[in-house]
Amino acid sequence: MQKGKLFLIPTPLGEDPAQPIPDYVAKVAHQLTHFVAERAKTARKALKDMGYPHPLRETEMIELNERTPEGELEGFLQRLHNGHSVGVLSEAGCPGVADPGARAVAWAHRNGIQVVPLVGPSSILLALMASGMNGQSFCFHGYLPQGKGELANQLRKLELQSSQQHQTQLFIETPYRNQALLEVAFQSLNPNTLFCIAADITLPTEYIVTQSVGAWKKNPPPDLHKRPAIFLLFSQ
Amino acid sequence: MQKGKLFLIPTPLGEDPAQPIPDYVAKVAHQLTHFVAERAKTARKALKDMGYPHPLRETEMIELNERTPEGELEGFLQRLHNGHSVGVLSEAGCPGVADPGARAVAWAHRNGIQVVPLVGPSSILLALMASGMNGQSFCFHGYLPQGKGELANQLRKLELQSSQQHQTQLFIETPYRNQALLEVAFQSLNPNTLFCIAADITLPTEYIVTQSVGAWKKNPPPDLHKRPAIFLLFSQ
Repeated sequence: MQKGKLFLIPTPLGEDPAQPIPDYVAKVAHQLTHFVAERAKTARKALKDMGYPHPLRETEMIELNERTPEGELEGFLQRLHNGHSVGVLSEAGCPGVADPGARAVAWAHRNGIQVVPLVGPSSILLALMASGMNGQSFCFHGYLPQGKGELANQLRKLELQSSQQHQTQLFIETPYRNQALLEVAFQSLNPNTLFCIAADITLPTEYIVTQSVGAWKKNPPPDLHKRPAIFLLFSQ
Repeated sequence: MQKGKLFLIPTPLGEDPAQPIPDYVAKVAHQLTHFVAERAKTARKALKDMGYPHPLRETEMIELNERTPEGELEGFLQRLHNGHSVGVLSEAGCPGVADPGARAVAWAHRNGIQVVPLVGPSSILLALMASGMNGQSFCFHGYLPQGKGELANQLRKLELQSSQQHQTQLFIETPYRNQALLEVAFQSLNPNTLFCIAADITLPTEYIVTQSVGAWKKNPPPDLHKRPAIFLLFSQ
């Protein structure tokens, strides 16, 4: 029997279902009945927004997060051996990047299952494109430490890494802590270091600005409280 | 007068014009008459494939590569101050990442011009999604050194960085040197290190497989000569 494929299905970055997901992504999703999702509720909404043509209660869906036991995930993915293809959806954006979806993909590779990544919005990549910083060499670090002193140390470490390796450094913060992160960043980084704030990417309120830390202190950003954002720095 | 915007317009990763570019990208491109392109010929073909509705000879286009003088680029981008929007196109994939487009973006930020990144295929991001490796922390290095000894040293350095920082390492090679890179990689890396080969991404011949270096030695990859590819490693 032919094995199924594992399709990685991007979803919009915000609430607006009219967002830029290519047509072929919906076409692939429409043909699937088995899904791995970070949260079932959000995934069902995303499928509905894509015009999913079957009753959603008839789909088989497993939630994959840090607490999902490996055995449960493996049991579900066995369906791939039986010829069923499976779609992986993250909460927002591209599955497998900064979400638990990579666990399903790793299992697929260990079991000789073909993995097919589909094109969609990634805040990391869009922010990098729009930052004007070096895209030939860059490093994404996820979340930085939360404590003020530790955060300042880590930011200065990234600044040093950037200047030594001519490398753009990217990181995120939970949206309700954006303002706290910016305060520490502007205090602890060199005034000449370039700093990009990219918030609400692909949404009508999109805000992407790069300037030096010194310039940010003079022209502070708008209130970013609770707005999804990604931050980049580059030191020459 | 309202200033123009700098739109970052993704193009397909291969020859097939039917590739996954979202509809809204073409809609934006259709409204523009000024473009910055890595190569004018490829850019005109990309616009034609997007159904660009105006005569292409009436567009204004500047080629941006490593040799383009800064003054020439700045002169062209002055049109943004006069209310004209400008599109940036790379040879393949997303402008501003591993191409000279970032220079146009950096100028825009220095001049208070809004930069709008549009969604499209990125071999770096698609490879990361499909690798099953850590997407919470990853580093893209562009091209590695070419000499055998230097390349082996650099690969072992990335392997160490991966295990110390739990970080996925990504890099590329010019397609006609893929086989030489793989030979050195399989000789010099630890047999337990995971290694992903992602070639012809989004094309009908797409090939994406992750296995340990030891497993690659037993099951070698197909001939990748002249096929665009990206490589990833992860060491636990």
